Amino acid sequence: MIDRLLPCVGWLKRYNGETFHGDALAAVIVTIMLIPQSLAYALLAGLPPEVGLYASMLPLVGYALFGSSNALAVGPVAVVSLMTAAAIGKVTAAGGVDYAAAALALAAMSGAILIALGLLRLGFLASLLSHPVISGFITASGLLIAASQLKHILGIEAGGHTLYDLVGSLAGGIDETNLPTLAIGALATAFLFWVRARLKPLLRRFGLGPRLADAGAKAGPVVAVIATIAAVELLALDAAGVAVVGAIPQGLPPLSVPPLDPGLWLELLPSAVLISIVGFVESVSVAQTLAAKRRERIAPNRELIGLGAANIAASMSGGYPVTGGFARSVVNFDAGARTPLAGVLTAVGIGLTALFLTPLFHQLPKATLAATIVVAVLSLVDLGALKRTWTYSKADFAAMAVTIATVLGFGVEAGITAGVGLSLVLFLARSARPHLAVVGQVPGTHHFRNVRRHAVVTSPKVFSVRVDESLYFANARWLEDTLYDRAVADKAIEDVVLICAAVNDIDASALEALEGLNERLHAAGVRFHLSEVKGPVMDKLKRTHFLDALTGQVFLSHYDAMAALDPDTTQDAELSPAVRA
Amino acid sequence: MIDRLLPCVGWLKRYNGETFHGDALAAVIVTIMLIPQSLAYALLAGLPPEVGLYASMLPLVGYALFGSSNALAVGPVAVVSLMTAAAIGKVTAAGGVDYAAAALALAAMSGAILIALGLLRLGFLASLLSHPVISGFITASGLLIAASQLKHILGIEAGGHTLYDLVGSLAGGIDETNLPTLAIGALATAFLFWVRARLKPLLRRFGLGPRLADAGAKAGPVVAVIATIAAVELLALDAAGVAVVGAIPQGLPPLSVPPLDPGLWLELLPSAVLISIVGFVESVSVAQTLAAKRRERIAPNRELIGLGAANIAASMSGGYPVTGGFARSVVNFDAGARTPLAGVLTAVGIGLTALFLTPLFHQLPKATLAATIVVAVLSLVDLGALKRTWTYSKADFAAMAVTIATVLGFGVEAGITAGVGLSLVLFLARSARPHLAVVGQVPGTHHFRNVRRHAVVTSPKVFSVRVDESLYFANARWLEDTLYDRAVADKAIEDVVLICAAVNDIDASALEALEGLNERLHAAGVRFHLSEVKGPVMDKLKRTHFLDALTGQVFLSHYDAMAALDPDTTQDAELSPAVRA
Repeated sequence: MIDRLLPCVGWLKRYNGETFHGDALAAVIVTIMLIPQSLAYALLAGLPPEVGLYASMLPLVGYALFGSSNALAVGPVAVVSLMTAAAIGKVTAAGGVDYAAAALALAAMSGAILIALGLLRLGFLASLLSHPVISGFITASGLLIAASQLKHILGIEAGGHTLYDLVGSLAGGIDETNLPTLAIGALATAFLFWVRARLKPLLRRFGLGPRLADAGAKAGPVVAVIATIAAVELLALDAAGVAVVGAIPQGLPPLSVPPLDPGLWLELLPSAVLISIVGFVESVSVAQTLAAKRRERIAPNRELIGLGAANIAASMSGGYPVTGGFARSVVNFDAGARTPLAGVLTAVGIGLTALFLTPLFHQLPKATLAATIVVAVLSLVDLGALKRTWTYSKADFAAMAVTIATVLGFGVEAGITAGVGLSLVLFLARSARPHLAVVGQVPGTHHFRNVRRHAVVTSPKVFSVRVDESLYFANARWLEDTLYDRAVADKAIEDVVLICAAVNDIDASALEALEGLNERLHAAGVRFHLSEVKGPVMDKLKRTHFLDALTGQVFLSHYDAMAALDPDTTQDAELSPAVRA
Repeated sequence: MIDRLLPCVGWLKRYNGETFHGDALAAVIVTIMLIPQSLAYALLAGLPPEVGLYASMLPLVGYALFGSSNALAVGPVAVVSLMTAAAIGKVTAAGGVDYAAAALALAAMSGAILIALGLLRLGFLASLLSHPVISGFITASGLLIAASQLKHILGIEAGGHTLYDLVGSLAGGIDETNLPTLAIGALATAFLFWVRARLKPLLRRFGLGPRLADAGAKAGPVVAVIATIAAVELLALDAAGVAVVGAIPQGLPPLSVPPLDPGLWLELLPSAVLISIVGFVESVSVAQTLAAKRRERIAPNRELIGLGAANIAASMSGGYPVTGGFARSVVNFDAGARTPLAGVLTAVGIGLTALFLTPLFHQLPKATLAATIVVAVLSLVDLGALKRTWTYSKADFAAMAVTIATVLGFGVEAGITAGVGLSLVLFLARSARPHLAVVGQVPGTHHFRNVRRHAVVTSPKVFSVRVDESLYFANARWLEDTLYDRAVADKAIEDVVLICAAVNDIDASALEALEGLNERLHAAGVRFHLSEVKGPVMDKLKRTHFLDALTGQVFLSHYDAMAALDPDTTQDAELSPAVRA
């Protein structure tokens, strides 16, 4: 019982020195990676840098207690930081106490929504985000984030939540470019791209093992941080106009209750829903991929509760919305993390940083952090996916293209909404036109097959049609009209038999359509029958007056129907062994 | 060609004296019915009474030119009038020029939307309104409309767009009740209920034929109108505080271009979309039912254009949004209307009324019109549908109940939106969990059936599973997780074969899920195969790298798969005639 409430009890029981060794090594590497990232993403979210550190402590402990993945590294991530900036930007002016308080409220709501979805076992709602929509969303967000960081690299003032606003704002301020800032930003960006693409093979060639070479490459941002701090110190670049992070309060996060302002919560609700779902989808994908590699499994509804706990923790310890990060979790896994304790140890590492190392970051140029972000998010941009999706499916391409265009043109929230809406409409448009097969008898058997694909015998006066889909509101009216039109087009037809072998459900709208069809066919002098209705569907129909009103019959098999309605055309069949079975 | 653009050319060619006789008689009866209705519904929409007459002239001609139903009677209807009041109430204060101008803009937009849907052949979008949502919407609107008319019957001031506001507002004003108004309103209501329930059998007993008796009963509202006008005149009740319709301008409708104010159009857009779709659904249902009785057919996309033309005509001739009315169309049909010319003749009848009879309506009590509305809309209220739907399907009941509660509590637009949203989510929740059947071989055959329902032979090392649904974003992730969990739960399993005989499509999200499943199973040492993939699906898969990455094979038949993967367990089969065919 306690295992179900707190999954950590399970892995703590089996904990030993070997697992600790793996977890501790992973925690050290992830901490080194997380320090610049957490500062940078807080900057992206429009929050003071220490908020990034705070969001990398207690939330990790919250996830470790309730989550189900052994490798997921939780904390601030790029896309959620961008969405946080957009959400709070709508309800308050950037900076100041209100902004940070809104971030806490957003984390609290996001946590509550995730936990509620988990308890109600509604994780499937995340599947409404189709893959092309997520992929388009991440690509467009990456471009938007990269554009938003250019101001730090140029050392100018700019802002905006759409590509148009950002580019316009950058173009307006480009004359003010601060050259020392640009030098640092451009060098850091170039260095980080080089590290990402070339350092690992180079370290291997110098004789390092693959894991050590990988760890070396991941330390690239830390090297950039140290080098640019040194440059600012030695060359007094802050006096030359290079914007630096400045004083970061030293110490552990402030514990508090998130602001309980109903007006603010109501305003933030739509954003909190989107942040929760996007964060969950991003996190659960990487958690599943990594779990599979060790033949472990994660429980999606359990993940919702774990991420919810992380966000509640963030809201009570001066943070902002968090989720499982993609790159960071892969590093955690590769470095040998075996249990969620790796996350707790990472939190300890960040805690020590907050206690003792923050004075070192005073001279850290914001341009360096921006370079870290740009290099990280541009790796998420995958415009090639557009072409691959176009090749595979035009409908999926449309959903992806509309998501990208809307994110860039109208912002993240409009983009995800438009993408999900369009996917739904396109899906319904397809399922609103199910496959209908007019069937005839395979001579000498009890089998009935599509007249277009098989040599079969058909009756001139009985119209036999099979529908390959459950009947529900989106296809009910179409089915009614199509069957009616096809039945009355041929004046010789006296009976219509609908074969329901593939019908798993008939909803109330479809029942109404069948009643209407029965009535319309009756007015036209044609009887309406069903055959091969599944048991559960028949049970539902028996609870209505439909079967009383039906002008025809319900036949157990379509052969029975044909033998009764047109015995002259229907051939006797020697039952084959397959049919008897 | 001209027939396709203007369906009227077709019926005009075949026009003769007999069809004219039917059309003319129907037009007279519908005109008598329409006069009080058009005045009353304009009142309900918050517009001056003459607007109701204007909306009953040119729109009928517009529909006759482009529509496809021979019996549909177009004009102002209750539900659309209520939605018009709600829509305009949001953007402008009641009364005055702006209100009427907004009504014209709403009709123009509604017309444009309907024509666009028709030209783009998007009529299927109307099927997103499931039957329980429409039924709940009409019931709740009927209650709301009846409540909104009580103020006229009591002779007090009241208002509101939700039941709560209406009841509160009525309760606040009930002390001001005008007794002569209440007397007229209550008597008219009682009389109209009596006419509806009892008059037709009574007339039959007095020896009238069924059609004449029916026509007599339909004239009930006209009798109430004449009697109450006489009462006001004779007893000078207007001086006693009975609100009367007052001066109605005499003459034909003013022709004009609808106001082209982009800000107003943008504000009205969501309402115009809802009005168009609700109006179309209401109209097309009755048109189809009536067409079927004469073995005729209507074309839904043609209907969209006909109703669109009617609304454009309304917007250019001082009207407001119109659609095909249910009761009115049935009367038109029963009275013998044979072609859309009956509508043109009705328009002429209303035109003559507007030219010569409007002075007679000066002393018509608003309470009489309110009584007409109350009696008409209460016949739409069908609370029994709640019980029937509960018996048939809990999901459909939920959609209906939420629609009713939201319309009553938050208004018509919120209600229809909530109903559609909930139906979609409930449908996706069901289709997100398709039926999965683990199958085994029917001994001695090439057939494979569900292990739970048949005595079949299964292989200990091959997991054979059939999915009975197309694979798409809402079920992709679930399928991936479920298949993975079931495959790795049994350590003896070496191969998984997914039988795709019922898979009509695999979208990009499902492709991604299959790729993920293939990778995860590979990591777990299990190969992944497909069997019985349909031709079009296979064509799509061949355009991707999926088949290269697949650790297993694609088998034409599941028997081939089993014979290759576990020849020891798979039994040879003598091909039965059915299988050979």
